[in-house]
Amino acid sequence: MSQPPRQLHLNVNILHSGFIPSAWRLPHADPLAFIDAAHYVKVARIAEAAKFDAVFLADNAAIIEQIDFRPITALEPTMLLATVAAATTHIGVIGTASTSYNEPYNIARRFATLDHVSGGRAGWNIVTTADVASARNFGLDKVPDHAARYARADEFTQVVKSLWNSWEDEALVADKVSGRFIDDSRVHPIAHRGSHFQVHGPLNLPRTPQGQPVLVQAGGSGDGQELAARHAEAVFSAAHTVEESLAYSRAINTRAAQLGRGPHAVKILPGLATIIGATEAEALRRRDELIDNIPWSYSLKRLAGILGVPVDSLDPDRPLPDKLALPGGGNGNHTFFHATLSLVKGRPHTVRDVIRALCGGGGHRVLVGTPEQIADDIERWFKAGAADGFNLMPDALPDGLQHFVDGVVPLLQQRGLFRRDYEGKTLRSHFGLVHPASTGGQARAA
Amino acid sequence: MSQPPRQLHLNVNILHSGFIPSAWRLPHADPLAFIDAAHYVKVARIAEAAKFDAVFLADNAAIIEQIDFRPITALEPTMLLATVAAATTHIGVIGTASTSYNEPYNIARRFATLDHVSGGRAGWNIVTTADVASARNFGLDKVPDHAARYARADEFTQVVKSLWNSWEDEALVADKVSGRFIDDSRVHPIAHRGSHFQVHGPLNLPRTPQGQPVLVQAGGSGDGQELAARHAEAVFSAAHTVEESLAYSRAINTRAAQLGRGPHAVKILPGLATIIGATEAEALRRRDELIDNIPWSYSLKRLAGILGVPVDSLDPDRPLPDKLALPGGGNGNHTFFHATLSLVKGRPHTVRDVIRALCGGGGHRVLVGTPEQIADDIERWFKAGAADGFNLMPDALPDGLQHFVDGVVPLLQQRGLFRRDYEGKTLRSHFGLVHPASTGGQARAA
Repeated sequence: MSQPPRQLHLNVNILHSGFIPSAWRLPHADPLAFIDAAHYVKVARIAEAAKFDAVFLADNAAIIEQIDFRPITALEPTMLLATVAAATTHIGVIGTASTSYNEPYNIARRFATLDHVSGGRAGWNIVTTADVASARNFGLDKVPDHAARYARADEFTQVVKSLWNSWEDEALVADKVSGRFIDDSRVHPIAHRGSHFQVHGPLNLPRTPQGQPVLVQAGGSGDGQELAARHAEAVFSAAHTVEESLAYSRAINTRAAQLGRGPHAVKILPGLATIIGATEAEALRRRDELIDNIPWSYSLKRLAGILGVPVDSLDPDRPLPDKLALPGGGNGNHTFFHATLSLVKGRPHTVRDVIRALCGGGGHRVLVGTPEQIADDIERWFKAGAADGFNLMPDALPDGLQHFVDGVVPLLQQRGLFRRDYEGKTLRSHFGLVHPASTGGQARAA
Repeated sequence: MSQPPRQLHLNVNILHSGFIPSAWRLPHADPLAFIDAAHYVKVARIAEAAKFDAVFLADNAAIIEQIDFRPITALEPTMLLATVAAATTHIGVIGTASTSYNEPYNIARRFATLDHVSGGRAGWNIVTTADVASARNFGLDKVPDHAARYARADEFTQVVKSLWNSWEDEALVADKVSGRFIDDSRVHPIAHRGSHFQVHGPLNLPRTPQGQPVLVQAGGSGDGQELAARHAEAVFSAAHTVEESLAYSRAINTRAAQLGRGPHAVKILPGLATIIGATEAEALRRRDELIDNIPWSYSLKRLAGILGVPVDSLDPDRPLPDKLALPGGGNGNHTFFHATLSLVKGRPHTVRDVIRALCGGGGHRVLVGTPEQIADDIERWFKAGAADGFNLMPDALPDGLQHFVDGVVPLLQQRGLFRRDYEGKTLRSHFGLVHPASTGGQARAA
């Protein structure tokens, strides 16, 4: 059998009304979509009809932005994904849950539940939480420092994996005749006693359809990359150039290989926002309409937050300030900081240019153009090895996704880059990942 | 307008394969129903077709029983209920979540999410967790004492209610023309600083369709009754006689009135297990078949656990030991201990009799008989004021529920005791509870 050609992976980030903060104001948009389960189901069904790998949900455990102008991340992702899974059959469901303000037993159980109720389509996006508003919702007055958050995240993830592995595949007997339900010799405590957690186990839930949910991460910092190299099967990165994304992919995968994982163990899926028109002029008009509906004060404040500078240090008609340093003394979001700097590197720009290029979003690359232009760009990144696929962030939902599905997906299929149908029913199958073998209940780090 | 006649409330406890531990071995049972979302959806749809108030899910955060012989509480309830809500339109969805091993911000958010995705059908069953296996999954070597657990539960519940109240009803503007999305002057921090929690708030989720999810509790102990009187809108109790249930209802509701709540603020919904046959003989045959399939060693161990005595102190042919005391020095489950003692009070019995009367379950009353006999019993309790309804635990699911729906529900309807259709679409409407007014974001205890 010949090796099948390498295939692109596509997820859609269901960022409530869409990537552009003013998306909710478009004429056909339902402004209350952000709290309407039916909206998320509708988007997921469009993505499933186009054979996407997965839907993705971000999360926050606090209000971390100005809320006067735009929708926020509100509904809890794992519960919303249970709803989405009930209304779909194939598409993966990847949800974010923080290691900073949860207990590993609860997270292991929730994602194992999601894997069971979805028939093997669950993924966990492992994050740490860096904002002070969240800290203050969980008994803290300030954010734990970056290294401490990542040390906790690493141990947290190990505990979760051990719990998922605490039942052998054969533990569930369920034999009516003998009356034997579970072979308890095949269900094992994990007896974890670490620096952050003591968790005895086992999980009160049998091994899941995928063996374990898919592990996803978004590691921009050094600590984040180490966490990704140790645990992640896919990374949602932020990058603006092929070179930068290629370097990132090599760094993560080299480190993963050093840790005894395979040669390309971690799929690199950069964020990609899209604004699509039948002609380039139409796409640009849509972009301008969306941007013009974003209050200038909102965009300035958001950029100031990413860069860690006072709002009044940003003059729309002048370049970004010199000597920018990681916000919060390195305790903030490294990913978006670096991505934003890379966007302006070596190019003439004003603060106004940067805000237009980011389209009011924070950090991720924005493509504006025709389906052909967008397919060309995706093909270029994919063939250069800078991406194994993309975490799509359509400008507005559901219509921006529908534009991508109607315009770009057929081109990617014609070029042999993207599937025309699902080959399996699990997220592991879509991503081409192995179903991890049971290790007899041993608690293992990787 | 004349006062409508007082109506019975019916919930069904979806205890995986059913109340009787051997239910999974019945000929038509799917032994793997306990991890199959479709099973829970099927049961909920039967209950919804019969116009039940709600489905109910219990929870454990550890394996707390022998698992060799029977299914366990496995799938996480709130996520499973999101799945159930997506497949139903009217029936309430009540899930258990522990105050012992969660953070109030996360629980407030999960149940608010459930209320949003279900369109106003969510209820939270507030519990504390008393088993050592759970403690060991959350960093503790032993169970916190009873009073400490309930003090935490009380503060936890207050924080959750304050968070649900942190958005005023009018905070969500979503006006496309002006571009105003949220009126942030109507979204308030709760700034809670208590003995157990510091939670700044606000919740990152608008006020829910019901104003707040319905609060349910199961308070058997003195501390539990106090918690119920302070917060609960319905109590899932365990009682074996009208007198005992009436006394319990009066105690809870008198205390609630002292705390400034209404005259009968707390609905009393005792657990009621049912084994139904077209004739009494058929019902008894079904009971015997179910009981004969439970290993004797399992039933003995379970009874010993409830009573807090060594297994070898129980002789099948002799009465229960004298001088029983609350297990764990009062730190265990008071409800089932007292209910079991009340079952045998003043009647000749052996350990074997008690185990047969409990049908291998723990503590709850079991009715065995024809639909007519069961309807008569329900009517008697209801008219005596000993119950506002019942938390049904059919012997086996879904067929035991189908027997109840086909046989008992029509009799209750003919007698004017139970609705023939839903009057509203929220759980508050089914339970006849008010939609709590927004108090302008003030953090209030009740």
